Amino acid sequence: MTAGKHFDEAAVSILQDIILHRRDVRGNRFLSTPLEDQVVDQLLSAALHAPSVGFSQPWEFVLIRDTTVKQRIKASFNEENEKALPSFSGEKQTDYVKLKLEGIMEAPLNIAVFYKPAGKPVLGQTSMEEAGLYSVVCAVQNMWLMARALNVGIGWVSILDAEKVKRILHAPPENRLVAYLCAGYTDGFYTQPELELLQWEKRKMKEAVIFKDGYTPALPVIP
Amino acid sequence: MTAGKHFDEAAVSILQDIILHRRDVRGNRFLSTPLEDQVVDQLLSAALHAPSVGFSQPWEFVLIRDTTVKQRIKASFNEENEKALPSFSGEKQTDYVKLKLEGIMEAPLNIAVFYKPAGKPVLGQTSMEEAGLYSVVCAVQNMWLMARALNVGIGWVSILDAEKVKRILHAPPENRLVAYLCAGYTDGFYTQPELELLQWEKRKMKEAVIFKDGYTPALPVIP
Repeated sequence: MTAGKHFDEAAVSILQDIILHRRDVRGNRFLSTPLEDQVVDQLLSAALHAPSVGFSQPWEFVLIRDTTVKQRIKASFNEENEKALPSFSGEKQTDYVKLKLEGIMEAPLNIAVFYKPAGKPVLGQTSMEEAGLYSVVCAVQNMWLMARALNVGIGWVSILDAEKVKRILHAPPENRLVAYLCAGYTDGFYTQPELELLQWEKRKMKEAVIFKDGYTPALPVIP
Repeated sequence: MTAGKHFDEAAVSILQDIILHRRDVRGNRFLSTPLEDQVVDQLLSAALHAPSVGFSQPWEFVLIRDTTVKQRIKASFNEENEKALPSFSGEKQTDYVKLKLEGIMEAPLNIAVFYKPAGKPVLGQTSMEEAGLYSVVCAVQNMWLMARALNVGIGWVSILDAEKVKRILHAPPENRLVAYLCAGYTDGFYTQPELELLQWEKRKMKEAVIFKDGYTPALPVIP
């Protein structure tokens, strides 16, 4: 045990920039240029050094470049996206159909990220079983930030039937699909989240989501 | 839409370092020095700029410094930790009882992180409901990395009864506890994950968790 590496203000500033400039990238922005092996290695290395409950590292990554596999996944997206439409009505529905919500075929690399249960009790997972799934999400977020630092775009596609994706990829029955990512170079990154630019949703006020010592008094307070 | 900020190799290298040196910090390492308001703001700002499904930003943060509130949370940890013990047998159980698994009282700041459902259909969440919870985990991981850049330790306590924590904090019934974090300065960061150093679990081989185009052929392959 040493004091450990000390980071300076420049490191804080760079991390802030990476976090602020990270975007969810869709198919209208991806370039077909393949990602170099070294870049893919750097993405995976970031994922593999995420925190995990009880150091269980309960993640598996399927790298997908095969066109036939991508087409099958895209078909599941199309079905689910069709099903989603009636959830939105009026103007929202008109706006929804105009949105490009995935980049499965356009992105040179897709990554299916699975949770693989340990099959034995895991330290820290005995009261909150979902901590295993959450470890996998931490790995996804590490990868997403590393991608941005490498000027690589990532888009998370959640409009999929997880069971169909598992069948397409011959995943073991105990595995659970956590994320389906599209990755590749882009022709650019938006200055703000696309759904904010398009006024689909507004950014929440900080004051509305931060509370002190509990939810009473009823009104939220800033620190 | 512009090409967006271009990051250089130095940024990649700093992010790699932050990811590699991030640790889960427990109560035997926290200092009682309070975190400055500016530091807490930087942590929260990192969280609030995480990706979220449909730009729903479904997160709420309860900042806890009150000793009585902390004591109640600690009591839930003690109960759950006691319950966890029979899951481990023999030498594992002997090792388990020696581990310090939280820093609730020692850390000057605790942060309970909740998922707050939107109460309306969310773009991207229609097929995979859990994408909302996962957005909140992305916020936690952003905060954890920012903490490390600021030389602040964070520990994630998952040995808790989520419903009891909700009652203690008077959380609305629809909220779901995603993470309970302990945050503060530390007397040092371990060079490796503590559970790896203590040989509780081994680091998995990269080759064991990376697959190409699907799970067949049965053996995993590196890219």
